[in-house]
Amino acid sequence: MTKRIRVGILGATGAVGQSFIRLLHDHPWFELADLAASERSAGKRYADAARWIGGGAVPESLRDVRVVAAEPGAVQADVVFSALDSGVAGEIEMAFARAGKLVLSNARNYRMEPDVPLVIPEVNPGHLGVLERQRAARGFPGTGGIVTNANCSTIVAVLALAPLHQRFGIEKMFVATMQAVSGAGYPGVPSLDILGNVIPHISGEEEKVETESLKMLGGYRDGAFVPASIAVTAHCNRVPVENGHTVCLSLGFRVRATPEQVAETLRAWEGDALARGLPTSPARPVIVTDEPDRPQPRRDVDAGRGMSVVVGRVRRDPLLDVKLVAMGHNTVRGAAGASVLNAELLARMGRLPGSEGGAFP
Amino acid sequence: MTKRIRVGILGATGAVGQSFIRLLHDHPWFELADLAASERSAGKRYADAARWIGGGAVPESLRDVRVVAAEPGAVQADVVFSALDSGVAGEIEMAFARAGKLVLSNARNYRMEPDVPLVIPEVNPGHLGVLERQRAARGFPGTGGIVTNANCSTIVAVLALAPLHQRFGIEKMFVATMQAVSGAGYPGVPSLDILGNVIPHISGEEEKVETESLKMLGGYRDGAFVPASIAVTAHCNRVPVENGHTVCLSLGFRVRATPEQVAETLRAWEGDALARGLPTSPARPVIVTDEPDRPQPRRDVDAGRGMSVVVGRVRRDPLLDVKLVAMGHNTVRGAAGASVLNAELLARMGRLPGSEGGAFP
Amino acid sequence: MTKRIRVGILGATGAVGQSFIRLLHDHPWFELADLAASERSAGKRYADAARWIGGGAVPESLRDVRVVAAEPGAVQADVVFSALDSGVAGEIEMAFARAGKLVLSNARNYRMEPDVPLVIPEVNPGHLGVLERQRAARGFPGTGGIVTNANCSTIVAVLALAPLHQRFGIEKMFVATMQAVSGAGYPGVPSLDILGNVIPHISGEEEKVETESLKMLGGYRDGAFVPASIAVTAHCNRVPVENGHTVCLSLGFRVRATPEQVAETLRAWEGDALARGLPTSPARPVIVTDEPDRPQPRRDVDAGRGMSVVVGRVRRDPLLDVKLVAMGHNTVRGAAGASVLNAELLARMGRLPGSEGGAFP
Amino acid sequence: MTKRIRVGILGATGAVGQSFIRLLHDHPWFELADLAASERSAGKRYADAARWIGGGAVPESLRDVRVVAAEPGAVQADVVFSALDSGVAGEIEMAFARAGKLVLSNARNYRMEPDVPLVIPEVNPGHLGVLERQRAARGFPGTGGIVTNANCSTIVAVLALAPLHQRFGIEKMFVATMQAVSGAGYPGVPSLDILGNVIPHISGEEEKVETESLKMLGGYRDGAFVPASIAVTAHCNRVPVENGHTVCLSLGFRVRATPEQVAETLRAWEGDALARGLPTSPARPVIVTDEPDRPQPRRDVDAGRGMSVVVGRVRRDPLLDVKLVAMGHNTVRGAAGASVLNAELLARMGRLPGSEGGAFP
Repeated sequence: MTKRIRVGILGATGAVGQSFIRLLHDHPWFELADLAASERSAGKRYADAARWIGGGAVPESLRDVRVVAAEPGAVQADVVFSALDSGVAGEIEMAFARAGKLVLSNARNYRMEPDVPLVIPEVNPGHLGVLERQRAARGFPGTGGIVTNANCSTIVAVLALAPLHQRFGIEKMFVATMQAVSGAGYPGVPSLDILGNVIPHISGEEEKVETESLKMLGGYRDGAFVPASIAVTAHCNRVPVENGHTVCLSLGFRVRATPEQVAETLRAWEGDALARGLPTSPARPVIVTDEPDRPQPRRDVDAGRGMSVVVGRVRRDPLLDVKLVAMGHNTVRGAAGASVLNAELLARMGRLPGSEGGAFP
Repeated sequence: MTKRIRVGILGATGAVGQSFIRLLHDHPWFELADLAASERSAGKRYADAARWIGGGAVPESLRDVRVVAAEPGAVQADVVFSALDSGVAGEIEMAFARAGKLVLSNARNYRMEPDVPLVIPEVNPGHLGVLERQRAARGFPGTGGIVTNANCSTIVAVLALAPLHQRFGIEKMFVATMQAVSGAGYPGVPSLDILGNVIPHISGEEEKVETESLKMLGGYRDGAFVPASIAVTAHCNRVPVENGHTVCLSLGFRVRATPEQVAETLRAWEGDALARGLPTSPARPVIVTDEPDRPQPRRDVDAGRGMSVVVGRVRRDPLLDVKLVAMGHNTVRGAAGASVLNAELLARMGRLPGSEGGAFP
Repeated sequence: MTKRIRVGILGATGAVGQSFIRLLHDHPWFELADLAASERSAGKRYADAARWIGGGAVPESLRDVRVVAAEPGAVQADVVFSALDSGVAGEIEMAFARAGKLVLSNARNYRMEPDVPLVIPEVNPGHLGVLERQRAARGFPGTGGIVTNANCSTIVAVLALAPLHQRFGIEKMFVATMQAVSGAGYPGVPSLDILGNVIPHISGEEEKVETESLKMLGGYRDGAFVPASIAVTAHCNRVPVENGHTVCLSLGFRVRATPEQVAETLRAWEGDALARGLPTSPARPVIVTDEPDRPQPRRDVDAGRGMSVVVGRVRRDPLLDVKLVAMGHNTVRGAAGASVLNAELLARMGRLPGSEGGAFP
Repeated sequence: MTKRIRVGILGATGAVGQSFIRLLHDHPWFELADLAASERSAGKRYADAARWIGGGAVPESLRDVRVVAAEPGAVQADVVFSALDSGVAGEIEMAFARAGKLVLSNARNYRMEPDVPLVIPEVNPGHLGVLERQRAARGFPGTGGIVTNANCSTIVAVLALAPLHQRFGIEKMFVATMQAVSGAGYPGVPSLDILGNVIPHISGEEEKVETESLKMLGGYRDGAFVPASIAVTAHCNRVPVENGHTVCLSLGFRVRATPEQVAETLRAWEGDALARGLPTSPARPVIVTDEPDRPQPRRDVDAGRGMSVVVGRVRRDPLLDVKLVAMGHNTVRGAAGASVLNAELLARMGRLPGSEGGAFP
């Protein structure tokens, strides 16, 4: 048995931090070495510092772990997952990278930087090639660096779009999302705002969908990202759902395609070979359903242990070519699970500190 | 004081029927003469026959009224509002029209017929001109006839679209709806299907939005309807909201327009002069809000006593021209209130049995 | 027309403050002179300082009013309604009373003090007699003083209990509440905590029900409160309801009573004569329903414009004598409306500054 | 490897039937031989006959199984689980018992019969002794018979009550429930009735709690059931929760007990030794939490894979002795899982057809 790689979580007490804990507390490749959070929590037992908001309870093995401060000097691991709020993530993540740590980040701060990879392993693993340039340009020592994953609703959309873009070339797309409250963290959305209601606005979200998707669907050539050339418009809405973002998509292609071809393409897609069979990989990144009224967050959110995107209602679009509905788990595939999968990919590639020599095939 | 016009309700015990009762039980122009329902209910006291599902209780004056069968011979009034389910509406409404009754219908059965008006008073009152042709063609005696109003989500959308189509000419539009459960009637949507969930499918709804909107936004020339020439695609979703359909719209115009021009046009619009100041008319058919996160069903659904559509988030659309959100009360403006307003318009025009001679200016 | 009494609101920007604004912005006896809030809000336009959380929008007449600091020197009115959080209410309310202002408070801080009246006008108006003693003991000048209303769930329960206690003498009672999220203010309960969930705990609530109810159902003799001698136990729960607290009650009486006698007693009860016909009084303080599955918050919360408590399911209790369900609007009858009704009662009694000489009969 | 026992499900297409399928489709002791339902479904593929309402999809191995009619002649298995609605369960279950089949029933029809066991394995396995008397009295051939489990809310309450009754003797108890919508089956509760609402009434439920609990907590002596002598009152409410019934309990004991003693008794309790370690047994039938605001349905419903009851808020009761909150999964522990556990207990006892000779220890 290979030695597991020690990892830490920055922002371990918050909502996304707790998602990381669910995924990492008994991970086959990673060993949870540091739970880091704000000064206020540092020094406390994790069970005291965190208000556990999901189902069940804090894993027994972590209840008594002392929380450390989210500073490079206080964290032992060389690989850290960042569940930090964007208000503080910029500074802290940079400090960790400068200290030679590899940061896998959920925060939006560096996603659109020209030397920062924004990656979904099944879609654009090649973007990780930019890491060397990043280190050189920014002077990060050793294996220091920042790898990001996209906004939750964008990840759900891009997993459904990538196979179609690869085959038919998307030219135009309309996106309308209905997003779960867990996407806003905790305490997040007040119940008085959302019970029996729809809020047709999520701050900054439409812009993220309209830009991050193009970076991930685009290429990486000669050391630079080339965003996909797609005209996109997004409408983002908050709905009274706990977990699971639903995304309605109307698509226009370069190469005309029928709904049947689209469904068949999605069904056949397995994602980049590099991303298959990782510990957190789902059996299929995209699952296509024929049920007339699926996907639904309550019934499909746990498909592939929250790592699959479920696509349904693939049909002709009277304005563009094809329309469909995609749905995925926003705090698993769309947040913590995305970072963990990125880390697993890096480990397989031997690019994670401690993963050298093909130790994690 | 003018004598009120006697009216009846077909399907008076169901959800839409109850909405009619709320609007008509103390109406200044109409007197509720007949509460008609299925054979099963006929003969019962209304309070016993109807399971009252909204707030409050059955109006005191109607509790002891005996329900009659939904047959022309059992109904005294010459004007009837139809809240019938489409499964039975086709046959029954036709029987009433053939018996010389004027039917104001919520059902979908005859909406798209070439001699049946599909009307929103503020938008296309001129379409009522087809009634004479309808009577001649179908042999309806006297004032017999069928006037319809559109599907609930279509009405909400069209009220926001009409001012813009009139001024800028809509060429393309993308529609994504989030619809309240009351739109499915009672018992309607099982709670196990919708609590904390989104259902991305409402049977037949997308087709209605894609066709009914074009008929209402289109013209009526030489005795024929000329549908608007707009490329439309719709995504219809059910969400856990009681009342109020939210509609996200992306619009492409013939004459380019900025978000400011769109907002100003909507603010200035008062609808067709014929429809102003009717008993059920709202002060403004369309209200524009500048709040960044409105309209919201829970907070705005009662605007204009449920008869106004509230529009917000008017902004540039990166793919077409402008995008916005519209929201309106689906069982008031989108159903019973729509029929009542149509009847008031006909009364003002002197075209309702009993309204002759300018009695209802 | 009598001159209206100038009043202020302390904590005008919060959730309860907004409820006060709904009730007071066009009140026939009171004129809203001061909107006071924290230092942070002072100086801002009300529309900018308050995040309006209920339906509709800030009343037009108040949008541009400047918020003042919640300090006696900054507030002109001699009568102030306190919507302050208990964390700050203690000090601020005392400062106002010492400055000669009469404070009508929603906060829990002084409710159980032996010289502070805790009043429901229909139930125990006589408790206001303690005001003189309060002023003397505490050295409040002029008309300075503090009058409180109870916790929201307690008010709902006590309105149903008072008629029964007056006639049959309650000895024992079980109380189980299901309370709306608006009772926790705004932002209050996070949606992740309550969507599709029940929280079987509301901090301090059970103790309030168990003590405040006894003070209000008790007497006031020789200048002292004599709490009712009732053994009470309460279970308080939060449920995903917007407005309306539902209270299940099992009651044991001194004088045995049947469900029929209980229902008849509740139906006949009109409350203390002093409280009838005030501007905010409902037609009936308690409404009894025979429907087998009512009261329900969604359907009955607006009974009597939110000021009536609706009682249903009056039936035999196998353990004590009778059980029943009571439901009332927690932010109207249970909070702001309770304070306003207390103020109206004091105005009628000529005990409010500016109400002398029978000006408000 | 022992040969598995063939079992069938009556009412396999409904909501409870689907719960049985989840528990039985890969059960170590039982082999699902027959899926029986109404005439209307008979002959169809299961995937076509059942509208699958929970998460995920119909187990692959059952999609193509042909549904048979719920008649003894059409069902091969000698052991059948009944998920039938009480409207038809009486007749059908009796027909199966008369045909020599052992029926494990969820329906209320025979629960209170003097020769029918109403069993929770951890609580009153001895009641199964009545089966011989039942067979003799009713003339059931071979291993024919009827074994029932209680109503869902009663099971949750009784698991918390049994340890306390055994040690301290319960004399009086007050029960207030907040029950999930899944308890009403599918389509069950209309969303218009329950979204943002509480319904303070569930038909027949309070009577079931007040009687079934006494039978299960009572004894079985000389061939007869002796109900526990406890004065009980119940208030049953429906709340907008998907799964998990929450039960507030106030308890008065024969032997006075403190909250600490109560908590310690619950913590120590393992249930009857006969019921430990069965395939569906949870590690602990009752779990006690110290969190101040737990148990909560959304966070605790899956404890022990839905088979544990979680108890919290054990505290002094000012009127009786102790109060607490219990919560459990109504369609697992409170329905299908209860029947399956009863069957496993019978198999261990060698009393299930096919379990003779200690085959299932």
